[in-house]
Amino acid sequence: MADPITVTAAILVIGDEILSGRTKDRNVGYIADFLTAHGIDLKEVRIVSDDEAAIVAAVNALRKGYTYLFTTGGIGPTHDDITADSIAKAFGVPIGVDPRAKAMMLERFAEADLNEARLRMARIPAGADLIANKLSKAPGFWIGNVIVMAGVPAIMQAMLEEVAPKLKTGVRMLSETVRAELREGDIGTELRAVASAHPEVMIGSYPFLDDVGLPNTNLVVRARDADKLAAARHAVETMLAAVRLKLGR
Amino acid sequence: MADPITVTAAILVIGDEILSGRTKDRNVGYIADFLTAHGIDLKEVRIVSDDEAAIVAAVNALRKGYTYLFTTGGIGPTHDDITADSIAKAFGVPIGVDPRAKAMMLERFAEADLNEARLRMARIPAGADLIANKLSKAPGFWIGNVIVMAGVPAIMQAMLEEVAPKLKTGVRMLSETVRAELREGDIGTELRAVASAHPEVMIGSYPFLDDVGLPNTNLVVRARDADKLAAARHAVETMLAAVRLKLGR
Repeated sequence: MADPITVTAAILVIGDEILSGRTKDRNVGYIADFLTAHGIDLKEVRIVSDDEAAIVAAVNALRKGYTYLFTTGGIGPTHDDITADSIAKAFGVPIGVDPRAKAMMLERFAEADLNEARLRMARIPAGADLIANKLSKAPGFWIGNVIVMAGVPAIMQAMLEEVAPKLKTGVRMLSETVRAELREGDIGTELRAVASAHPEVMIGSYPFLDDVGLPNTNLVVRARDADKLAAARHAVETMLAAVRLKLGR
Repeated sequence: MADPITVTAAILVIGDEILSGRTKDRNVGYIADFLTAHGIDLKEVRIVSDDEAAIVAAVNALRKGYTYLFTTGGIGPTHDDITADSIAKAFGVPIGVDPRAKAMMLERFAEADLNEARLRMARIPAGADLIANKLSKAPGFWIGNVIVMAGVPAIMQAMLEEVAPKLKTGVRMLSETVRAELREGDIGTELRAVASAHPEVMIGSYPFLDDVGLPNTNLVVRARDADKLAAARHAVETMLAAVRLKLGR
């Protein structure tokens, strides 16, 4: 059987306010869930400041490494919103007010209110497709494999919904969680053997404290193939039963 | 006057569970707040998977670019915990069970319970200093300018507290927030002029919806020099008053 098609992605979060701690990012977790649900593997995330050189470098590194790059932030009307210009620079294309984007904004703003600052939100790199923004009209855009979205979570989510039907999607990753009822250190050696015996299945181990404060572990078994997943899960459960018996739990 | 000393940092979050969306990262925001409070400028964040090549590449890129690199995750007892080995590889140094780390772990575990898996947590790259872990004993470590911490937030926070007194700190960034009572697009042009006139002050513009759902904007003025900050804040307030008058608000 051929390998299932793998579609990969990276996220670039742009904004001083995230790095200063003033704003706590809520987009990475949301996009991560979205991508997992669509069978797209999120491979890397970067957060950079509102600095053109930093944005250009990150965009060019990430767009070459993955199927898609999603960016959030920096497409508003003020001087610190430099994402669109930075993307144009990364792609080496001109940028100017896009008549399609301006038309979208005129659905919300009277011509007289579409001042210089607001018109900045209609500046789109040449060759980009627009991403509709049903909440506040100023669009995102899609150029090459880069999808440029707002930073405000509700608007970002609406834009993600717009692009969803157009994305290549992979075979969805299946995931099952087994609660070990053992501490992570109790099972590390045995779990390594199970993982080695199931190289096409990813097995993650996540310690947590249970409701009464006792250390416990969730084992997460992930694969795109249901049979391989079931075999690995069975091996994990057999291993856990053996360790519990040995330790008298 | 000489420029204030600038101390910079990056964060590297290591873990498949963050990228899959299963776990929502809570460490970046916490470390960002911590660094800002200590006058250290957080410049970049990356999140990568439990993959040696990805970790080594990110560690080597980030440790060369900034004063400090803080990493979180991947120092537990299971097969997917490969941070310590990857850091050793990035630095080109050997790694093995460190007697100091083993001694720390023996404060919690009986010798008989210090099995192969748990001893993995005492594997420390040669030349590293240990970071005590008062919660669960298995230490983090500090090698070169790289500070390697656990991913579990409570343990990460305890380790950050341990390293805090040893960090070089910069002049603390002062920050004031002015609520505009205007929409971001109302003030973009005027705000750009204020920002240009105060090049040593950072002015960020953050739109939000107020309690009754009306669009509003917070302007955040940041500088290390109190006088420059006060002058920029005054200019922002004067500008806002003029725009409100013009728009009849």
